[in-house]
Amino acid sequence: MVEIVVAPNAGFCFGVKRAVKIAEESTGKFKGSRIFTLGPIIHNPQEVDRLRRLGVKPLEDEDLREGDTVIIRSHGVPPEKERLLREKGVNLVDATCPYVKAVHEAVCQLVEEGYFVVIVGEKNHPEVIGTLGYLKESGGEGTVVEDLKDLEVVYKHERVGVVSQTTQNERFFKEVVGELALWVKELKVINTICNATSVRQEDVYRIAPNVDVMIIIGGKNSGNTRRLYTISKSLNPNSYHIEVPEELKPEWFEGAKRVGITAGASTPDWIIERVKAKIEEICGERSSSS
Amino acid sequence: MVEIVVAPNAGFCFGVKRAVKIAEESTGKFKGSRIFTLGPIIHNPQEVDRLRRLGVKPLEDEDLREGDTVIIRSHGVPPEKERLLREKGVNLVDATCPYVKAVHEAVCQLVEEGYFVVIVGEKNHPEVIGTLGYLKESGGEGTVVEDLKDLEVVYKHERVGVVSQTTQNERFFKEVVGELALWVKELKVINTICNATSVRQEDVYRIAPNVDVMIIIGGKNSGNTRRLYTISKSLNPNSYHIEVPEELKPEWFEGAKRVGITAGASTPDWIIERVKAKIEEICGERSSSS
Repeated sequence: MVEIVVAPNAGFCFGVKRAVKIAEESTGKFKGSRIFTLGPIIHNPQEVDRLRRLGVKPLEDEDLREGDTVIIRSHGVPPEKERLLREKGVNLVDATCPYVKAVHEAVCQLVEEGYFVVIVGEKNHPEVIGTLGYLKESGGEGTVVEDLKDLEVVYKHERVGVVSQTTQNERFFKEVVGELALWVKELKVINTICNATSVRQEDVYRIAPNVDVMIIIGGKNSGNTRRLYTISKSLNPNSYHIEVPEELKPEWFEGAKRVGITAGASTPDWIIERVKAKIEEICGERSSSS
Repeated sequence: MVEIVVAPNAGFCFGVKRAVKIAEESTGKFKGSRIFTLGPIIHNPQEVDRLRRLGVKPLEDEDLREGDTVIIRSHGVPPEKERLLREKGVNLVDATCPYVKAVHEAVCQLVEEGYFVVIVGEKNHPEVIGTLGYLKESGGEGTVVEDLKDLEVVYKHERVGVVSQTTQNERFFKEVVGELALWVKELKVINTICNATSVRQEDVYRIAPNVDVMIIIGGKNSGNTRRLYTISKSLNPNSYHIEVPEELKPEWFEGAKRVGITAGASTPDWIIERVKAKIEEICGERSSSS
């Protein structure tokens, strides 16, 4: 029989659970209003579909009208965007994760203290775009670092402040901070990596080397899931990234005795359960046919 | 013929040159007074002997009297020690390196800003003991980190400020800062590694892998010289740490075509010159006898 190890910290983080709950509640609070989220509320098409059935859909090319309801998802938005929405007279529901708000506040604090700001994160990630908005709004200077090469423009600054995208890889963050400490005169680091991300990554470091197959569940466009997969693959070549149980292939599990499962921050529990059941089914068929 | 590469940044640093000059000048300024240095003015017995002949000697068990002259060497001393000396009525000459003074100031600033202070350095090094004195004097809390294990007591603090012994290894400093950035909520780093140390270390990283033999000159009790040797040995097994040219062994140079030389911060130029001449002599004899 196959043993399945589900990572204790797999799946939804606090901020995502909270945003989904806020979206669900808005269907009661703003009954009769069209309810939109600014972009998919989470990186999970299945969960987005479930919410759509409840009446909450991602804003696409609809023109917003007074009285519409708009939910800012957990990633947050630049303050300018928020202002523009308020001017349209929509009901604005802010589901920005409190940990992301903490990054915005940290950036504003560093600007006030006169630091050039480094945001360690992905340049095109919505959270980072939101954070950059706060940097601009507060009149500060700074840059996003997603590769050590991006540090070149930073070295000419004497006083540098660092924050992180909440879902950043800890090892890269450590590398950036270490490099900067050698180059700049004064460095202030406010570690804004969300604990949910780090414990989820620690699970992978612990489980992946000790199983025959490691399955990572999550949106193919989710940065934090892709990082879990990258970490897992470096520790165990039999690592696979899937979105739904239908993608599981029986040949992955040939001879496997222990299978690990984890999931990115946007994966609901019911998908994890379905993946687990499907693996048990595949391995069960295999042992009964052998 | 052997080619000898002398590291461009070998030998005395600014602070040591300055302290030696101050010691020499004090023999004129305080003529007739007994002149002592608090500990050997530099980690170089030969240079200490030269100064002794000029009338400047390290304080040993002599009782200080009013009118004696006492030179604080480049390492600095705890402020309490300075006060005790002033109370004795001696002429106090402060040759503390300005870069070391900058560490004292950085520590006081971090304490004032409410940080728990980490001094990356050697617990028993006189410079670190001096810096710890300023930490205590300013009413702050902190610790010395010379090994990653020393960080354990730091993790419970949310706001941590970091400085470095001026002659600290950059890679270890980077490692400490990176670790701390992951664990504490807010980190402020004031990089007080002296540029003289880092350029001297960079010389070794560049030269040692490209020579057949690497000679590191400096006091056997000098931390910065030992670090140069450790770095060199990791890059080139034919690395040797000597204090004086007499220690050079002909067998080290068998078959050597390129020899690198560097020297710790306390090594005077005339010793580097004598080592170079001695290597040329050894290799010259070898080629004429073969």
